[in-house]
Amino acid sequence: MSQMNRRVCLAARPSGLPKPSDWDFVEEPVPEPGDGEFVVEISHVSLDPAMRGWMNAGASYIEPVEIGDTMRAGAVGRISASKHSGFDVGDDVYGVFGVQEHARSDGKGVSKIDLSLAPAPTYLGTLGATGLTAYFGLLDVAKVKEGETVVVSGAAGAVGSVAGQIAKLKGARAVGIAGGEQKCRWLVEELGFDAAIDYKSEDVRRALREHAPSGIDVYFDNVGGEILDAALTRLARHARIVICGAVSQYNATEAVRGPSNYLALLVSRATMTGMVVFDYAARYGEAMDELAGWLREGKIVSREHVVEGGVSAFPDSLLKLFAGENTGKLVLRVGD
Amino acid sequence: MSQMNRRVCLAARPSGLPKPSDWDFVEEPVPEPGDGEFVVEISHVSLDPAMRGWMNAGASYIEPVEIGDTMRAGAVGRISASKHSGFDVGDDVYGVFGVQEHARSDGKGVSKIDLSLAPAPTYLGTLGATGLTAYFGLLDVAKVKEGETVVVSGAAGAVGSVAGQIAKLKGARAVGIAGGEQKCRWLVEELGFDAAIDYKSEDVRRALREHAPSGIDVYFDNVGGEILDAALTRLARHARIVICGAVSQYNATEAVRGPSNYLALLVSRATMTGMVVFDYAARYGEAMDELAGWLREGKIVSREHVVEGGVSAFPDSLLKLFAGENTGKLVLRVGD
Repeated sequence: MSQMNRRVCLAARPSGLPKPSDWDFVEEPVPEPGDGEFVVEISHVSLDPAMRGWMNAGASYIEPVEIGDTMRAGAVGRISASKHSGFDVGDDVYGVFGVQEHARSDGKGVSKIDLSLAPAPTYLGTLGATGLTAYFGLLDVAKVKEGETVVVSGAAGAVGSVAGQIAKLKGARAVGIAGGEQKCRWLVEELGFDAAIDYKSEDVRRALREHAPSGIDVYFDNVGGEILDAALTRLARHARIVICGAVSQYNATEAVRGPSNYLALLVSRATMTGMVVFDYAARYGEAMDELAGWLREGKIVSREHVVEGGVSAFPDSLLKLFAGENTGKLVLRVGD
Repeated sequence: MSQMNRRVCLAARPSGLPKPSDWDFVEEPVPEPGDGEFVVEISHVSLDPAMRGWMNAGASYIEPVEIGDTMRAGAVGRISASKHSGFDVGDDVYGVFGVQEHARSDGKGVSKIDLSLAPAPTYLGTLGATGLTAYFGLLDVAKVKEGETVVVSGAAGAVGSVAGQIAKLKGARAVGIAGGEQKCRWLVEELGFDAAIDYKSEDVRRALREHAPSGIDVYFDNVGGEILDAALTRLARHARIVICGAVSQYNATEAVRGPSNYLALLVSRATMTGMVVFDYAARYGEAMDELAGWLREGKIVSREHVVEGGVSAFPDSLLKLFAGENTGKLVLRVGD
């Protein structure tokens, strides 16, 4: 009696937005753990804009997903079988388990999580890679200081929403840029941003003049494109720009739009730095402890947008990220 | 008996390359110094790509030159009359005296120079703002380290030629990008660059793969445009890009071409920083001492491209910078 595992594989490298035909669904028996391995029954899969980049050929900050391979994804679940001395049946764990229902693992890169402290989806968001990205991007790369003005794009997304809240915690002024009135209201009313700019209905440059009157000290960019160019026009002297992502460009079928206003870096003696959270792996523990403390004390709010439907809902759910349909961390529920 | 002064004034803000009609020539008596002032008889005027930016309206890293004002320029000369207690007739000085034959000054920002150590044009180049830009850009902004690969664009220009030589002095590998075989030969044979890439006849991306096989650690950019984009494809992990200028873009009549490959900053965890040499004014003295020492010991070569013809030759001479006609520092001789 072998239970079945369903997984989502990359069938083709997309041009532009991923199409249904870019995915394959594979059904096969749940794997058995070998010696030093365990099997996880996955409950939630992380959906991230960066996934789009992993689908492209060519070296980037991480190897691409190969055609035919299970789509890479962070996920959480509970160990259902184990021949690993460090992991027991019943342990709740986080790892890069892929878009599937059951994953076999040798434990590398896997960490145990405590669901009594926070629900599973939070370990994919505020206490996961996206929260850690916000944490290290703002504190280590941008080195935000009290009294500074921090502008965050993609502010209602998983990374941006945490980045803005950490900025506030550190005594900075936080201005978010997001799409739609509802998201903007959420940023200000629920998360405590000082201001939010709706790029769908406002002139972003004009709004930045209003909300960052003495210039932007830190610009945390998740989107690229026109909004990055707008932010460049408002830099304060010695501004730091963190390039965390460029969701507006990931599905571009022509050349990526480079920031025409990049010479503002010279005018403002500013710095633009690219970051990848993996580089901070040795410090994930301390950061998660601090983030968990802030969550517990109610100093930051974590929001996950959980999509139902299991792995078969993955292709459509991923597209929500590029349509800007999520507020907070987008997570796919896989388990029952 | 009043001797005449001729000066070049900005008549109109150019669109694209400056035209003859963008300049006015004014002839008037040589000024007399007031109390606390002196008058300089100018011998050489500095010609810099940055001048093109100063001709545009709008705030930048420095105020624009206003219509009707004498064109801003660094210059050297000898004091011909003085009512200033700190400056005597016969003193040789450097200052931002403008494109003219005689300048009145209150001494602010003026420094005495010693023509027994180096000829006047060198005080506009290697011992002037361009040499200092190379010095602080490479040592302070990029923090070049021994064994690293440094790529310099505009390498045969005033800043680039010094930047590459400082890179070599610090034990780095220096690769220059310049236009034309002659410049490239000069870089390698006279200045000691490890390699030079002729962007006019070579595929810059391919050449960078060859000459920076383990990637670019420091990219010192003077040109922007396609060459910046090519360099971005070859960054080593934790590369530092110094944005010093963008001569390819200064005369653009459409939007500046932003670097399409800027997401390489993320892939390589790299930093792009804009610099303006003025910020280092407090340290000019120490830097000039070190540069003068290197010159004296023959560790760096200074080359000035001196154009004759006086202030009336200024409009045409400035265009040489944008046509890439100069090798080394372009200087206009004004005195006899």
